[in-house]
Amino acid sequence: MTLSGLFTPVATPFIDDEVDEAGLRANIRKYMATGLTGIVALGSNGEAVQLDEDEADRVVAIARDEVPSGRPLIAGTGRESTRATIAATRRAAALGADAVLVRTPAFFKQLMSADVFIRHYTAVADASPVPVLLYNVTMYTGVALQVEAVARLSAHPNIVGIKDSGSDVTLIADFLAQSAPGFTVLAGSGVAYYSALAAGAHGAVLALAGVATDACVEIRALVEAGRMAEARALQQRLVPLARLIGGQYAVPGLKAALDLLGYRGGLPRPPLGPVPPAVIDQLATALEAAGLSPTRPVAAS
Amino acid sequence: MTLSGLFTPVATPFIDDEVDEAGLRANIRKYMATGLTGIVALGSNGEAVQLDEDEADRVVAIARDEVPSGRPLIAGTGRESTRATIAATRRAAALGADAVLVRTPAFFKQLMSADVFIRHYTAVADASPVPVLLYNVTMYTGVALQVEAVARLSAHPNIVGIKDSGSDVTLIADFLAQSAPGFTVLAGSGVAYYSALAAGAHGAVLALAGVATDACVEIRALVEAGRMAEARALQQRLVPLARLIGGQYAVPGLKAALDLLGYRGGLPRPPLGPVPPAVIDQLATALEAAGLSPTRPVAAS
Amino acid sequence: MTLSGLFTPVATPFIDDEVDEAGLRANIRKYMATGLTGIVALGSNGEAVQLDEDEADRVVAIARDEVPSGRPLIAGTGRESTRATIAATRRAAALGADAVLVRTPAFFKQLMSADVFIRHYTAVADASPVPVLLYNVTMYTGVALQVEAVARLSAHPNIVGIKDSGSDVTLIADFLAQSAPGFTVLAGSGVAYYSALAAGAHGAVLALAGVATDACVEIRALVEAGRMAEARALQQRLVPLARLIGGQYAVPGLKAALDLLGYRGGLPRPPLGPVPPAVIDQLATALEAAGLSPTRPVAAS
Amino acid sequence: MTLSGLFTPVATPFIDDEVDEAGLRANIRKYMATGLTGIVALGSNGEAVQLDEDEADRVVAIARDEVPSGRPLIAGTGRESTRATIAATRRAAALGADAVLVRTPAFFKQLMSADVFIRHYTAVADASPVPVLLYNVTMYTGVALQVEAVARLSAHPNIVGIKDSGSDVTLIADFLAQSAPGFTVLAGSGVAYYSALAAGAHGAVLALAGVATDACVEIRALVEAGRMAEARALQQRLVPLARLIGGQYAVPGLKAALDLLGYRGGLPRPPLGPVPPAVIDQLATALEAAGLSPTRPVAAS
Repeated sequence: MTLSGLFTPVATPFIDDEVDEAGLRANIRKYMATGLTGIVALGSNGEAVQLDEDEADRVVAIARDEVPSGRPLIAGTGRESTRATIAATRRAAALGADAVLVRTPAFFKQLMSADVFIRHYTAVADASPVPVLLYNVTMYTGVALQVEAVARLSAHPNIVGIKDSGSDVTLIADFLAQSAPGFTVLAGSGVAYYSALAAGAHGAVLALAGVATDACVEIRALVEAGRMAEARALQQRLVPLARLIGGQYAVPGLKAALDLLGYRGGLPRPPLGPVPPAVIDQLATALEAAGLSPTRPVAAS
Repeated sequence: MTLSGLFTPVATPFIDDEVDEAGLRANIRKYMATGLTGIVALGSNGEAVQLDEDEADRVVAIARDEVPSGRPLIAGTGRESTRATIAATRRAAALGADAVLVRTPAFFKQLMSADVFIRHYTAVADASPVPVLLYNVTMYTGVALQVEAVARLSAHPNIVGIKDSGSDVTLIADFLAQSAPGFTVLAGSGVAYYSALAAGAHGAVLALAGVATDACVEIRALVEAGRMAEARALQQRLVPLARLIGGQYAVPGLKAALDLLGYRGGLPRPPLGPVPPAVIDQLATALEAAGLSPTRPVAAS
Repeated sequence: MTLSGLFTPVATPFIDDEVDEAGLRANIRKYMATGLTGIVALGSNGEAVQLDEDEADRVVAIARDEVPSGRPLIAGTGRESTRATIAATRRAAALGADAVLVRTPAFFKQLMSADVFIRHYTAVADASPVPVLLYNVTMYTGVALQVEAVARLSAHPNIVGIKDSGSDVTLIADFLAQSAPGFTVLAGSGVAYYSALAAGAHGAVLALAGVATDACVEIRALVEAGRMAEARALQQRLVPLARLIGGQYAVPGLKAALDLLGYRGGLPRPPLGPVPPAVIDQLATALEAAGLSPTRPVAAS
Repeated sequence: MTLSGLFTPVATPFIDDEVDEAGLRANIRKYMATGLTGIVALGSNGEAVQLDEDEADRVVAIARDEVPSGRPLIAGTGRESTRATIAATRRAAALGADAVLVRTPAFFKQLMSADVFIRHYTAVADASPVPVLLYNVTMYTGVALQVEAVARLSAHPNIVGIKDSGSDVTLIADFLAQSAPGFTVLAGSGVAYYSALAAGAHGAVLALAGVATDACVEIRALVEAGRMAEARALQQRLVPLARLIGGQYAVPGLKAALDLLGYRGGLPRPPLGPVPPAVIDQLATALEAAGLSPTRPVAAS
């Protein structure tokens, strides 16, 4: 199963601070009717760090229920310790995940050397029943897997790729140039999506693709067809939306955008709060600019 | 019970990647024979982020066993979600912790506004059966409680103080100047320990105090007696040690230093690894400079 | 005269800490035999900040001598004060510069607001006899013109473009999308050269183009022909060289590479020193990887 | 002549963008009637980077006129190149400066290694007719002399001290501990003034001392008398003022404060502009809190 293509990290909806399992199920079902290659459960945008272990397992189980076996289901299983990461990885695999996306450990920042990362990911990949994707999300972790470490890890038979959430496309290009053949490089920045594809990325995992799904699918098709100017123009229409649900408002922004599009978004888990009302207007405008038709839900008025 | 004074965050020793309960118990018992005011269990240096919930509870229970009821036992209970933080806080209180030290949530960095922190800590303090200490550890979290938020939170009847792990003593001075009367400000940087006390801090929670315990006790006494030059000179002798077990080698450095002094240090939990052999020599030299008598354990040779 | 195209910031050679006017002249003459659109005199790589006003004027005069009137000569004239910037701009124009490249003032970093930049550049452009290019070189200045300020300044009839030296192609894309029609956006990062062109940049000012001139010309032609994979592959061969003479060794690295290619490089002005001998070997290897034929000058052995 | 003590970097007033020589003279004359040890001409707050060489020389000459020979006059002479720094240093010495304060070169940030700094300062000190003070002002330069380099340079017979403008008092303590005997360490941060003295600094060069002169003199006396709590309390009253004229509004803030106190402040040189009107009110309030009696000048109403 190839992991090239376009994925979205599904949000985890809550009702009264409990996982809204029906809402999660409904959202995934809708995604399965789009051109998305597959989904990521328990990504950063899925508020994975806010879920306990039982909740995390339920999310994977529900996702597997809704994602047909022909389409890839990736589960986020990164934890601080190697031992907890392996445990989460094994549980996710047992629940049907096709691959795991393993965020770097990050708490003891100054200790997170290439050697530590290599030891960690090698142990996880050795123990994992399913293929492992490395995961750099420096904006949240404050640490980064560098090119040399990724190049070395790419030689491990069970480490099949990396998602890099940054907008530095020279890093994406380096990962592509330095890694083992067949190693999949996925972008994670909506703002830099076109540029990452132009640099040769094999696909992306984008919160943006959870709202502007068709446009994200089309940008990839345009780049593959060499229609760069059209791809750039379409990307540019998505930039304001990418900014709002990316760096600026993140999960609360994504959830508000989902609400505007008929998905189950709702409130993030505290201490995260909802976006301010004015941002909902900005989101509606940005969604329209991206060619979508946002509708204020009745419940939100 | 006052929380002014000198505390150390006890390391969590492991044997074969399992919590070494006997070792933990032995270490705390030794600390109870020193001039330390009390201890912090499950601090950053206790590798709290690497423990699962059951292990964390065991550490608190053991610590309560060993810390006499007259001396303060503080337990670290910060989690990313408010809900998990409250749950951990209640469990720690039930296990006998006198107060909880609650690290800021931090994953979604750009969303960690003063409002989010105030909402989080207010909910935690409302729910906590024991007094709450705020906890800024920016070197690890990448976020910081600012003065205004701390000032507002200091008015909450169940929020009794803050530990700030940075070396910015102007921030310590601001916390002292802007917070409610009776609010306790504890320093967390071994390198800046003297300067924080000179700025008026009420005490400290220091990994350094877990190895150079007597010297740390003495610095505080000297400052209180207005013998600044002597305090400065003693501090200066501790600086190399403070650097090695603080920013540079952190938990692995602390554990190696503990081994050299007859405490149970051992290996940190992976992916953290031991310090390189050369660092053990540096630690031994720094311990001697601090007036201690390190002994290479036979097992380490 | 269009400023789209490929430029190099010519190095300023020295002999015994004095400007080597003959060497400068020889270098420019060689560049005029290449596919470069034109040159920049007194850029960052020309050590402009290390020259006094008289030396700077001589460099412009010599460059005008050697650059035929049909080809653009751009002169760097940024200073900290508006008044000194205007004076330098007028002198450069009087000496024949076709346009000026005006680095942001930067010393008082926290005061460098959009308003300050807009006031500064408007005054300079009002007073300049020749068109003005804005110049962001954040790696050296620590400040940055943001998109909104550039968009506003792009409406000034005498502000014709911007050079941005960073590798953030999403910023390049924003400048393109938000600026007035006809505003020229030039990239300045050798490592991100292909990606900037793929994002739509109109050209570049590259130290890399002063050594790997033909390859840089070719990358631009390939991108314009839609042959992206070939352009990417050629870019990738230049990356090690771009790193060595860009961020890592900067002016000393550029000068050593020039020496290896038969240009007059020599020593930078102190306090800058030469690259270590081992770096000369790295440069030679990187030049070969880029398809060039470096020759160790006899004087260097 | 000792350089221990309290200095202020005098502002350079302008009228219609020309140096207001009479205003400068008047300001210095007033300072000579205070408890200041001496002054710094051409410091960062003197807008040195905005002056041309002739203007700079005039400022030194005027300062020497007004500062009696018994009191130290320090002149800022840092430039990017070693050659220009030496030239400025010699001119300042010839004009009567007792010592020079030499800001680190900084433009090529990644090249500013310890070796480069040591080579630069050694050459400058070798050539200087007067004693040299090192000068770290990282908030403006983005680079820093580290402890090891300062320790080595402190052994040079013509390098007599350092001014460090940061608020990191552990760095101040390190400079004190690692440098040669007799090496003078001066603080430069108004916010951290008390803490730097408590850490053992020999004095300070403070913009704050140009407005709250008496209070700054008193803090030093209190610390020397071991009356730490009183010193801390007085410092705390100065903090809001120190913030306004330090990091936040810098030169424009300092000049507005000078205007409020009857000194000649006026406008900074463009592109710097005046502080917003609301800030003048904040400054007046902060000056009152510091025990001063600000008066709105008629011209400003």
